[in-house]
Amino acid sequence: MVEKRTPITVEEALKRVLANQKNGGMEYVDISAAYGRVLAKGLIADHDVPSFDRSPYDGFAIRSVDTEKAAADNPISFNVVGHIGAGSVFQQTLREKEAVRIMTGAAIPKGADAVIMLEDTETIDNDKINIKQQMKHHQNISFQGEDVKKGSLLVSKGKVINPGIIALLATFGYKQVPVSKKPVIGVLATGSELLEVDQELEEGKIRNSNAYMIMSQIERSGAVAKYYGQFSDQLNVCIAQMEKAMKDVDYIITTGGVSVGDFDLLPEIYDHFDARVLFNKIKMRPGSVTTVAQLNDQLLFGLSGNPSACYVGFELFVKPVIDRFICRDKVGMNKEKATLSTEFPKPNLFDRFIRGKYEFRGGQLVVAPSGKDKSNMVHSLADANCLINLPGRPNGYSLGEEVDIYLLDNHW
Amino acid sequence: MVEKRTPITVEEALKRVLANQKNGGMEYVDISAAYGRVLAKGLIADHDVPSFDRSPYDGFAIRSVDTEKAAADNPISFNVVGHIGAGSVFQQTLREKEAVRIMTGAAIPKGADAVIMLEDTETIDNDKINIKQQMKHHQNISFQGEDVKKGSLLVSKGKVINPGIIALLATFGYKQVPVSKKPVIGVLATGSELLEVDQELEEGKIRNSNAYMIMSQIERSGAVAKYYGQFSDQLNVCIAQMEKAMKDVDYIITTGGVSVGDFDLLPEIYDHFDARVLFNKIKMRPGSVTTVAQLNDQLLFGLSGNPSACYVGFELFVKPVIDRFICRDKVGMNKEKATLSTEFPKPNLFDRFIRGKYEFRGGQLVVAPSGKDKSNMVHSLADANCLINLPGRPNGYSLGEEVDIYLLDNHW
Repeated sequence: MVEKRTPITVEEALKRVLANQKNGGMEYVDISAAYGRVLAKGLIADHDVPSFDRSPYDGFAIRSVDTEKAAADNPISFNVVGHIGAGSVFQQTLREKEAVRIMTGAAIPKGADAVIMLEDTETIDNDKINIKQQMKHHQNISFQGEDVKKGSLLVSKGKVINPGIIALLATFGYKQVPVSKKPVIGVLATGSELLEVDQELEEGKIRNSNAYMIMSQIERSGAVAKYYGQFSDQLNVCIAQMEKAMKDVDYIITTGGVSVGDFDLLPEIYDHFDARVLFNKIKMRPGSVTTVAQLNDQLLFGLSGNPSACYVGFELFVKPVIDRFICRDKVGMNKEKATLSTEFPKPNLFDRFIRGKYEFRGGQLVVAPSGKDKSNMVHSLADANCLINLPGRPNGYSLGEEVDIYLLDNHW
Repeated sequence: MVEKRTPITVEEALKRVLANQKNGGMEYVDISAAYGRVLAKGLIADHDVPSFDRSPYDGFAIRSVDTEKAAADNPISFNVVGHIGAGSVFQQTLREKEAVRIMTGAAIPKGADAVIMLEDTETIDNDKINIKQQMKHHQNISFQGEDVKKGSLLVSKGKVINPGIIALLATFGYKQVPVSKKPVIGVLATGSELLEVDQELEEGKIRNSNAYMIMSQIERSGAVAKYYGQFSDQLNVCIAQMEKAMKDVDYIITTGGVSVGDFDLLPEIYDHFDARVLFNKIKMRPGSVTTVAQLNDQLLFGLSGNPSACYVGFELFVKPVIDRFICRDKVGMNKEKATLSTEFPKPNLFDRFIRGKYEFRGGQLVVAPSGKDKSNMVHSLADANCLINLPGRPNGYSLGEEVDIYLLDNHW
């Protein structure tokens, strides 16, 4: 039976997929496990930074009024009455012509209103210094709240947590960090030609590479992969596997079985479950047979068995759904403009997504395919750091033309 | 005691650090855990791809000689003697005017030397087709080894494993993947002003943010962090902690305690262990007091207690050592040229590394500081995706000048 399919655009396909609004809610993880997760709540400063008036320098805390008459030819002598290390607090109140030795970051003692840097003073002995310059009221003091006011929003919800954000979380006492729950995505491979990775090659067969590739794409996108193995071309086995997976996971990806061939199973499986097919044909290459069906709040992604098409189908349609689930502030790959450093002379009849490699030349983004455009998926996928989008048009693309690229590396 | 220090350049400091040539060797991990690791051996194809002659199309395998006289007005009738699904092998040898229905990817049967696409044939009944065009010897056959020859190097040692490389590993049967061992890096925070993340604030104290920040930088760089807690200003406690850490880890990072202040401990600790100080002053801002000492094959990184200086010190000096340890094919952050979208009017007396945020404007890399350049470390670290390097010179830097930036995100 050869099915009739109605192709839709990539934009329309994405729109239908993103109509699924499921998100996973929040969980708390220890700060030591928060790197790379998505912040599930805006990070609000619960105290001022600094949280007390402090010294920005190594030096002496003094009363500026005592330096009013200080000058190079009129040194004023101060009694050193204490020594404040970082973290310590000087308990007395400073009196006339008293100075306290103070470290960077330490709290300004009561009574003091200025800090003079160590190198601007003259040490007489352990208990005495001379000051030869006038100090102003509030000179060299970092005031409470000067960097961050209590209550301000420091990082908004949806940001991926990087080391700088970790520093903020620690500063504000987030031992437990609110992060978005990760979706669990089941992966099933179909195809009677597939061997498992550790099986010996046989004539007519190839090892299953798509499932492992997809699982690492899932991991890169911030979700959790669960492998259900490869299933054969027997309809009842497939259905049983699928039923099992549906109970455990948020979304399901199958690889293979979507072509319009004699042995392709997916349409029958969708029928069995009464899943609503959102689309089964997209006006693009590769991956034109990418199929997505919906069953309750689950999406069943039917990716092509062709490795490049499978890869592209994931990045274009599964990654945005993951981003949505984890409430990331950006949905889908980052898109940038780049200059083609190669030509595509042939007519470009479809919206194409070519495995590409971008690089910077003098600060300019330049891109070329990452391998032979032919079936040589092998190198092209391993070296790709972007997808080059060439929309369909009657002519080809010339060297130096500006095109859109979608970045594959983890550009949060 | 105020120590005298001799400042050296960033380049010289890096050279001294990288003189440490320790690397961790290799271990095997399951392919499902290999994403993001560094490949420890070149990936060599142990078989041809395809590993057998196969059909690139859905169609019929035939003997081209039987089509010699075929033409639109001279259909030649073929008997369909079999049906080969992907993964199956047709066991007989094709004879005169016989055709075998063949799926994309299936092995070409013996005797056949061409494939005619399904749409180019005329179906008479289940067992008979007509062919109306001449087919050439070897037409529409993907030959064994056409994509990859057995023995070729597909991915070289030192590459970080991405999903495309996972696909290759699976194709070539790497159920267990040889990857570089990760270094374990001990983290100790010093400073009597530090509270743990879950402690209530007290006057004069701040929470320890550097240790958690550094641990996530370690993770981002592909190493393993081990936290030894914060240690006080008591020399004997510090030494005991350090001794413990040294037994377990490959490198040690301490934060704080490196300034030329009264209470700084690190010089005394280095002395105690008879560690050789590689440098303790660098001609750069921030992080001028970054100190590295060597003890046998261990490096002791003494990073500043100032968050920005600590962050920069890690990326400039610890990350390259990690890259070396894991035999990554690139050592250190990626460096690119970018255009300043802001000016730095003041004289720039030191080699500076400013937390920056780059973005693409029409394919051009443009960069600005990610926060106030002042002490406001808070936002500037959270939003930074690069370090802007401004080498020292008497004048400042103008808007539109091209500068070097070092990328912080995981641009493998």
